[in-house]
Amino acid sequence: MKFKLGEFLIGNSLKTEELKGEKLNVFWGLPILSSDAISSVAYAGEEILWVLIPVLGILSYKYMFLAALCIVFLMFMVTLSYRQTIDAYPGGGGSYIVAKDNLGAIPGLIAGSSLTIGYVLTVAVSASAGTAAVLSAAPSLLPYRILITLLLILFMTIGNLRGVKESSKMFGVPTYIFIIAILTMIVWGICKVKLFGYVPVSHYSIPKVTGDITLFLFLRAFSSGCTALTGIEAVSNGIPNFKEPSQKNAKAVLELLSLVVFLVFGGLSYLATLYHAVPNSQVTVVAQIASQVFGNNIMFYIIQTTTAIILIMASNTAFSGLPMLLAYIARDGFAPRQFAKRGKRLGYSNGIIVLGVISGLLVVLFKGETHYLMPLYAVGVFISFTLSQSGMLIRWARRKEKGWLHKAAINGMGAFITFATAIILGVTKFLDGAWIVLVLIPLIVYCMISIKKHYSEVARQLKLPLDEKPKEINYDEQKRYVIVPIDTLNKSFLKALNYARTISDNIIVFHVSVDDMATKKLLEKWDKYDVGIPIIVKKSPYRSIVGPLVKFIESEEYAAGSKDTVTVVLPQFVVTKWWGNILHNQTALFIKTMLLKRRNIAIVTVPYIIFEK
Amino acid sequence: MKFKLGEFLIGNSLKTEELKGEKLNVFWGLPILSSDAISSVAYAGEEILWVLIPVLGILSYKYMFLAALCIVFLMFMVTLSYRQTIDAYPGGGGSYIVAKDNLGAIPGLIAGSSLTIGYVLTVAVSASAGTAAVLSAAPSLLPYRILITLLLILFMTIGNLRGVKESSKMFGVPTYIFIIAILTMIVWGICKVKLFGYVPVSHYSIPKVTGDITLFLFLRAFSSGCTALTGIEAVSNGIPNFKEPSQKNAKAVLELLSLVVFLVFGGLSYLATLYHAVPNSQVTVVAQIASQVFGNNIMFYIIQTTTAIILIMASNTAFSGLPMLLAYIARDGFAPRQFAKRGKRLGYSNGIIVLGVISGLLVVLFKGETHYLMPLYAVGVFISFTLSQSGMLIRWARRKEKGWLHKAAINGMGAFITFATAIILGVTKFLDGAWIVLVLIPLIVYCMISIKKHYSEVARQLKLPLDEKPKEINYDEQKRYVIVPIDTLNKSFLKALNYARTISDNIIVFHVSVDDMATKKLLEKWDKYDVGIPIIVKKSPYRSIVGPLVKFIESEEYAAGSKDTVTVVLPQFVVTKWWGNILHNQTALFIKTMLLKRRNIAIVTVPYIIFEK
Repeated sequence: MKFKLGEFLIGNSLKTEELKGEKLNVFWGLPILSSDAISSVAYAGEEILWVLIPVLGILSYKYMFLAALCIVFLMFMVTLSYRQTIDAYPGGGGSYIVAKDNLGAIPGLIAGSSLTIGYVLTVAVSASAGTAAVLSAAPSLLPYRILITLLLILFMTIGNLRGVKESSKMFGVPTYIFIIAILTMIVWGICKVKLFGYVPVSHYSIPKVTGDITLFLFLRAFSSGCTALTGIEAVSNGIPNFKEPSQKNAKAVLELLSLVVFLVFGGLSYLATLYHAVPNSQVTVVAQIASQVFGNNIMFYIIQTTTAIILIMASNTAFSGLPMLLAYIARDGFAPRQFAKRGKRLGYSNGIIVLGVISGLLVVLFKGETHYLMPLYAVGVFISFTLSQSGMLIRWARRKEKGWLHKAAINGMGAFITFATAIILGVTKFLDGAWIVLVLIPLIVYCMISIKKHYSEVARQLKLPLDEKPKEINYDEQKRYVIVPIDTLNKSFLKALNYARTISDNIIVFHVSVDDMATKKLLEKWDKYDVGIPIIVKKSPYRSIVGPLVKFIESEEYAAGSKDTVTVVLPQFVVTKWWGNILHNQTALFIKTMLLKRRNIAIVTVPYIIFEK
Repeated sequence: MKFKLGEFLIGNSLKTEELKGEKLNVFWGLPILSSDAISSVAYAGEEILWVLIPVLGILSYKYMFLAALCIVFLMFMVTLSYRQTIDAYPGGGGSYIVAKDNLGAIPGLIAGSSLTIGYVLTVAVSASAGTAAVLSAAPSLLPYRILITLLLILFMTIGNLRGVKESSKMFGVPTYIFIIAILTMIVWGICKVKLFGYVPVSHYSIPKVTGDITLFLFLRAFSSGCTALTGIEAVSNGIPNFKEPSQKNAKAVLELLSLVVFLVFGGLSYLATLYHAVPNSQVTVVAQIASQVFGNNIMFYIIQTTTAIILIMASNTAFSGLPMLLAYIARDGFAPRQFAKRGKRLGYSNGIIVLGVISGLLVVLFKGETHYLMPLYAVGVFISFTLSQSGMLIRWARRKEKGWLHKAAINGMGAFITFATAIILGVTKFLDGAWIVLVLIPLIVYCMISIKKHYSEVARQLKLPLDEKPKEINYDEQKRYVIVPIDTLNKSFLKALNYARTISDNIIVFHVSVDDMATKKLLEKWDKYDVGIPIIVKKSPYRSIVGPLVKFIESEEYAAGSKDTVTVVLPQFVVTKWWGNILHNQTALFIKTMLLKRRNIAIVTVPYIIFEK
């Protein structure tokens, strides 16, 4: 049996009916849809400290914990809000759908394109961050940094092409190990100080206090920590990916996700306060805490390793989120339709592949230095949050169902907070790159609207009134106009000629002469062949093949009226080896493309298969 | 009138008859075919000194001059030999043709692939060297080094696509300025010392003598200077590029080229001896001499600038040599035939474009650090010299024409010297990269032979015996088997159906169902449409469109015998905007490709043109 690389990598094709079997339960749904959110937690606390500590010194830990509490509260609000969304949109309710449904197409597309940017950047950033983590353990691999990052992206792409369920197992186990390891660290770390009286000694000196807390400083710290919230979207977007009852399962995953983020983020922030971790460019805050809590034993390495793995896995959320988002957008006609088609293994393969390729290009373009793409990514996510929650707010306000005020209040508050965060992120990071988002979003929205316009126009022109029946057959007309181009007299041409004779007895063999010698030889051979079919030769001074052919068809010399369909029968030989196509068929393909642009030419391709030893 | 970028860049199409007007006279032929050779001279002396000076110190200049004399002698021999080749091969006699003609196909291909490697590397190396020269004048451009190199290659590619004659003017002027400036420097430099008694003071200290001259050392020095000989090949390869009498003109250019190389190389070597230039990584030998001869005045800058320009121009020899070489090889069937076709401006555009792209890739791959590709390049050139001259030797020995012994002696000696040089280069630079040539050449030769085999096999299978006439027309048969696939009932489908009805009255409309809902809708519509044509629906569990169609055609259910040609009429809508094709036609194209692999299916494409506002 022939070994097929494709099947080996992504598995056999799956039937459409098997879609059900591919769906997620709660246990595997949690890691696959939460790795992004959970991994963000690993550095959210550190990001807060980076903002505070140069100004507030030792006081930072107090405000860090405060900021963390605010974020946990925000998290809680967003979770509540998305629970409502899941109830309202059983078919999947990401920001795109909610915004489109309640605010209109343009806000929907803004949310959709913000998320698209976010997802693509998630993959590039997390694969780079994962590589950095791997390289800090094995510095000898440093020259291969970009290659390793690309291999990671390739690995994620293939894993996701294999399908939802298998990838959830492949990516789920490390996520669970990470969660358990971190929770163990939190519990043990708190016990060590509170029960066993350990007095933590900071590894690094805490900078002196140079200023006082201001609202702006606090808000900056708060927004820096908001990366912890990215990835929540994926759950409510992915409802159709869940086993029945899918809404119930999605809600369970959302709640568990919030719980995990709450425990891990809250716990880590508290530990940072207890152990006075100081962010620096060499050792991460998590690593500092781990080495103080455990010493340099096996647990320290488990924390370090699973952190690296989960950073890589974070891109998995994007791989399950973006293809589904694109499928929604494509179904509405705002993106190429191919995104709405399921591949061999039932995933939206085109979306997965496009995500892999674009994020790979970003990694190459930025040479793996993607960390400063972070602000872009957060701004995009918060724009979509704001739109989604505003959408829900409008929905409740319009419908005025029972208890709507309560629900509207939750979404309204969420919208306000996320909007404020988006503004703060946009302002403080404008020059760092947030401006790129403000350029990209309208650009993407414009493209999407153009695509929609195009599809609508095509549909309008193609629409067939049911009273427009097929034409009456006119056998006189049908036999009129068949042209068989000839280059050399060979079997492939003969097969085309034979075919042409079955559909018409008014055949013209047409030769475009670019080389006088070759034409002379052909004409001599044609004379000898003597089959009573006229040959017409046109010289092509500029060596174009299509030009003279089209000119002839349109000329007075040829009797076809402007309304008659002219048939061109093209011999084409088909080679079985893939590289054979580099050596042949360029001209035939070009002729076909050019001729198809004229309304009244039908092209018949008659294959002649060349067998190769 | 619409602005066309292509025409703006490369000019209007030229008629085949205008080929004569595009040809070169002696004045413009010299710079276009000699820039490679002349630019090599700029660093050949330096290369010799690099080998000698660490061992011989002040004594180096004596042996450098000796090595230079040997190279001039070698140059003289090669020139004599190539004069003979031009006489013997009026249609163009590069190493490929001479070796193939006299030694057989494989030696010919070895010469051809050596030269191909050489030409590609020439472009990469000379564009990089030119960029380095530009950057030493403007260091602020350093971050854009690779971009500048690529722009230079693009510039050369476009210049050559414009055509032979225009590019010769574009590239000829700087070559002449360089020659005149260097000759002025030589004359003035000699006069200054010999007539005006100037005593040169070396800018750099000459290293102490650490060893004695050995044959091996001298041969290494000699072979390092042999880069001066690369590019001579281009003249005899390019005979058909010359105006009539082309052989006489080619010989004149060859002789002038030798004279220029003799004067420039000999003169520079003599000046290096007089002025005791010491090679180092900061300042080139030519620059040292120029600053001593002229001081830092305008002439110094003219020398520097034209040196930079001529380094870039050197790649022009490759741009005129390789496409012609590939055209020869393609005409013999050893390379894809597209290389033998003349483009809009009568140059072999495909060869020019491929050369530009591959050398650009090399630059990106090696990040512009192409200088260590030099040994590869020289080895390749000398392998082809050896094969070419051995070929000529065999030719004289076989034919035994009048005076053959004299001619054979010249070629034999040339073959021996170039062979020795190739061996020395190969041995001393084996680990530096010369091994790559020894891997690449057999690989390329293998590919070329495979291509030839493929073309021969295709030709054999296509060969039509003149007594095999077209089949008798059987109208019963012809009307039998037409399938029109349907996805949705629209105008494009109707047009295809109308066409199908003109060639058969036994039509089956075929639908592959991948979505039950869509199929149901279609069937309801089809019932309403009510045109009395049967529709067949096949479910496709794996969402493949082609599979069920092929299965149906081959099944018992469908009456076609294995010998009958089945016609599939595919509606295809054609969009006028280029990006429209991204949004459509993927499926149609895929179906066509897959169906064409089956012998008995003819595919009719019926275009339906969508007009866009």
